[in-house]
Amino acid sequence: MSNIHDNIARNNGTITLYHAPQTRGTGVLVLLEELGVPYEMKVLNFKAGENQQPEFLAINPLGKFPTLVHNGTVVTEQVACYLYLADLFPEKGLAPALNDPKRGAYLRWMAYQGSSFEPALIDKAFNRSPVEATQLSYGSFDKMLKTLFDQIAKGPYLLGEQLYAVDILWGISLKWCRMFGLITTNPVVDAYIDRVISRPAFIKAEQQDQALLLAQESE
Amino acid sequence: MSNIHDNIARNNGTITLYHAPQTRGTGVLVLLEELGVPYEMKVLNFKAGENQQPEFLAINPLGKFPTLVHNGTVVTEQVACYLYLADLFPEKGLAPALNDPKRGAYLRWMAYQGSSFEPALIDKAFNRSPVEATQLSYGSFDKMLKTLFDQIAKGPYLLGEQLYAVDILWGISLKWCRMFGLITTNPVVDAYIDRVISRPAFIKAEQQDQALLLAQESE
Ligand SMILES: N[C@@H](CCC(=O)N[C@@H](CS)C(=O)NCC(=O)O)C(=O)O
Ligand SMILES: N[C@@H](CCC(=O)N[C@@H](CS)C(=O)NCC(=O)O)C(=O)O
Repeated sequence: MSNIHDNIARNNGTITLYHAPQTRGTGVLVLLEELGVPYEMKVLNFKAGENQQPEFLAINPLGKFPTLVHNGTVVTEQVACYLYLADLFPEKGLAPALNDPKRGAYLRWMAYQGSSFEPALIDKAFNRSPVEATQLSYGSFDKMLKTLFDQIAKGPYLLGEQLYAVDILWGISLKWCRMFGLITTNPVVDAYIDRVISRPAFIKAEQQDQALLLAQESE
Repeated sequence: MSNIHDNIARNNGTITLYHAPQTRGTGVLVLLEELGVPYEMKVLNFKAGENQQPEFLAINPLGKFPTLVHNGTVVTEQVACYLYLADLFPEKGLAPALNDPKRGAYLRWMAYQGSSFEPALIDKAFNRSPVEATQLSYGSFDKMLKTLFDQIAKGPYLLGEQLYAVDILWGISLKWCRMFGLITTNPVVDAYIDRVISRPAFIKAEQQDQALLLAQESE
């Protein structure tokens, strides 16, 4: 957690990712690797509770990963970090431009991850009975998942022929859910997940996470 | 629900909002009024279950409001609809441009609404015990709300001197929560909510909703 006291306002163009291995921060790490842009990583020991210490809470009061700092601005929430970074480097082609006909679908499936998929998943993971009211949230887990899978089936990527940041987000989200048995996939979805997570950026981020984890265990 | 069969692909530049009064669709209605742009509204009778009929499910398989269609693209999820519409009309000044230093915070507080605030609120509204794991979601309700309120207290608007679409989203969200007693506000937050919801766009949307509700009750 060294350097965490650095003045945020002095951040001066550096992209800083506050990270703990194998958290939602990994999703942003993969995106940074996929973008191939320089960034600085400040690693916190999640198990040791460093993210709930005053130094970090001064940056993100929820003590959550991912947390990004860029040019003195704090960006939290995985979906916001994704949207922000992909738009920051339009030349990398990971976000449809504002006037691209794919922009609406791009935003829809980004927001879907945070506003429908994650809440549904948490209910599932913790065996909580979903809220019955049609007033609130995601409907049913199965409908929520089928809606996503139907979109994936159009392939090869979520918005068609081209990979966007939103595929990176779904690649890592679905990989975790598959690994923990939280979703039942099908061959088409498996192929999609594997297509995305076999990219060099995923492999590199995974290796970085493993090394960080080992280092933290011996701390 | 007339015209719902209209071919989406023929949408041709018209912004179509599938709406039911006093749902999350109202948030998007207010934003459209605030933008002052032309749009078409297709009203569905929520109580009669029209949104769970095959015609609408063909557009949004979750049967949820808000659902937007523009140029043949379906946009769902309140946060995505907000981001999409505000960016579509940069001249209206409701979204910081991609290179504006406020962009990161804008995205953060947009995503926060869907990914942290709403899940926390649902747990609260339905008296569900929050998930204990620090792995998932929003932390605690109180911390989540305090983080937002601290940002609001900087004022007069969420990102400073200027009102953005994200204020419209929080204005309507907090108005509802206050009305249903789901949050305990303070004078500063109350003043913020009132500052936002007293705008003509809110009043117009509210009147439209009331008229639609009356019409539906007599259907
Ligand atoms: N709504 C947030 C959730 C972030 C989150 O819950 N991250 C977990 C790790 S995967 C965390 O940082 N937990 C640490 C803690 O709560 O102390 C987002 O989408 O980014
Ligand atoms: N995650 C969605 C939730 C939308 C939602 O649940 N809308 C409610 C009305 S406020 C709805 O359409 N319910 C109808 C139904 O589920 O049948 C969003 O953020 O837009």
